[in-house]
Amino acid sequence: MVFSVQILGSSAATPTTKRNASAMLINMNYTFYLVDCGEGTQIQLRKYKTKLSKIKHIFISHLHGDHFFGLIGLISTFHLLGRKNELNIYGPAKLKEILEIQLKASQTEIRYQLNFHQTNPNTPELIFENNDYYINSFPLDHRIETTGFLFGEKQKPKKIKKNFLFTEHVSVENIIKIKKGQDFVAESGELYKNENITETPPPPRTFAYCSDTRYYEPMIEHIRNSDLLYHEATFMEDMKDVAKEKYHSTAHEAATIAQKANAEKLIIGHFSARYRELDGMLEEAERVFTNTQLAQEGELFEIEPNKKTRL
Amino acid sequence: MVFSVQILGSSAATPTTKRNASAMLINMNYTFYLVDCGEGTQIQLRKYKTKLSKIKHIFISHLHGDHFFGLIGLISTFHLLGRKNELNIYGPAKLKEILEIQLKASQTEIRYQLNFHQTNPNTPELIFENNDYYINSFPLDHRIETTGFLFGEKQKPKKIKKNFLFTEHVSVENIIKIKKGQDFVAESGELYKNENITETPPPPRTFAYCSDTRYYEPMIEHIRNSDLLYHEATFMEDMKDVAKEKYHSTAHEAATIAQKANAEKLIIGHFSARYRELDGMLEEAERVFTNTQLAQEGELFEIEPNKKTRL
Repeated sequence: MVFSVQILGSSAATPTTKRNASAMLINMNYTFYLVDCGEGTQIQLRKYKTKLSKIKHIFISHLHGDHFFGLIGLISTFHLLGRKNELNIYGPAKLKEILEIQLKASQTEIRYQLNFHQTNPNTPELIFENNDYYINSFPLDHRIETTGFLFGEKQKPKKIKKNFLFTEHVSVENIIKIKKGQDFVAESGELYKNENITETPPPPRTFAYCSDTRYYEPMIEHIRNSDLLYHEATFMEDMKDVAKEKYHSTAHEAATIAQKANAEKLIIGHFSARYRELDGMLEEAERVFTNTQLAQEGELFEIEPNKKTRL
Repeated sequence: MVFSVQILGSSAATPTTKRNASAMLINMNYTFYLVDCGEGTQIQLRKYKTKLSKIKHIFISHLHGDHFFGLIGLISTFHLLGRKNELNIYGPAKLKEILEIQLKASQTEIRYQLNFHQTNPNTPELIFENNDYYINSFPLDHRIETTGFLFGEKQKPKKIKKNFLFTEHVSVENIIKIKKGQDFVAESGELYKNENITETPPPPRTFAYCSDTRYYEPMIEHIRNSDLLYHEATFMEDMKDVAKEKYHSTAHEAATIAQKANAEKLIIGHFSARYRELDGMLEEAERVFTNTQLAQEGELFEIEPNKKTRL
């Protein structure tokens, strides 16, 4: 099942002609989850030919404009395009009021179901789950209340090998036991060791989104062993003090979090407009955490199903 | 003195990959006046290398999102870029509240002076003037309260020819009289006819902005003899009934207003996304009013000083 992340914007604070404001699109088995929605996100979505009706959930990390000024436009466009299916928005309490006052001013009565879910900036919470996935929010350390998000697959049960099921008659009761890891004794008395008759499903994958934030070790427990981690890197290490003062991180700090959290791969983004070239930024992160890539508009990161359980 | 209009967005309702949401930039002697500010306007301004600090006044016609969703982002960007000079915003009363709630949510205290001027949707009003220019608002006929704007130069006094001033000694009192149109009698008794010793300044120029609106003849008195008229043309005439129902105009109707108002030149814009090609739209308008052009992103319309007074 596909699990990918597409970067829609990599700019901090203000959009530029080269970089868009923060937003990324997560594809989990062809349901789309949008994370943050800076100004111009709807234009980015069109540019990358996203099927807008497949966006079912939108997550807003905090109420700095570069993370949500595009949301009201996207909601309006869904309405104008005749969207039918419901839309879930997860974000700070005040966001609901901001959306409502604007819809009211334009006398727009949204024709689809718009559900608002308030996030909790102080405590980690499960904010969404279905049979296959769960999404957690957790606190970050920013100038205003901000949450990160963890998108995870649920652990699938073991799969019984087909050739075994053809060979032996197995009751439903025993199928459940085998899936839980038990061996099986056939009527003939033959013992089938569990590892010989089952396939272990690939371990569940996770993607963690951490923007905006200072260097903040308490987040690590919520993102540990992520297959893919997005962590903001607004500045480089020579501006560490500025980063701290402005509640942002450096590339070095982002990479340190990735390393301490035992992430598989790191994406850094949310670059200050002062950095026209990003090679130095990338090198700084790579010195701490090799498997780092830059967030760049349009880039798609696929999280492959793992071949073996990661340690 | 330069008097020009640059199109930043020509799209109705939603931005597309080809067309941006409504906005245009008026340059009157190198002070910039922004009219409407749809999502992405700040990116358009950067694309066309506008000196942002020269934007002193922003006018919002109404509170449909495609005309103002970019305003909060632009205000924030001015703040983040360290703007010093004050900014005046003219628009519907509710706009102030919409801006304030968003600035409050992000705990942003704008460092420059932000002045809000409420427009009156029911009565024509002078909303700005200085020594050289005036700006009026006037009601349009849209689904929600909407105003058009007229940007005008003030009539300059007659200019006394320099060679005459070198020849004769003229008192300040007489200079004022000559500028008002009187003839002059020199101490020698010689009579100078006013038309021989003065230059008539070019007639003052005007630009009228009319979006969004149904076909609405009462606006004509407020835009009569405009040198340049922007009038929305969301639809073509075969969708006249839809246009009326949605409180918009057709290209034919826009051209009819231009013709009845005795405009010099018409720009049509605010095109429905259903029209990928606009040739038919233009032809429809030209059949009624020859001097019509399409609004296209980036296009600059210069209003030349007239050589003689228009009738």
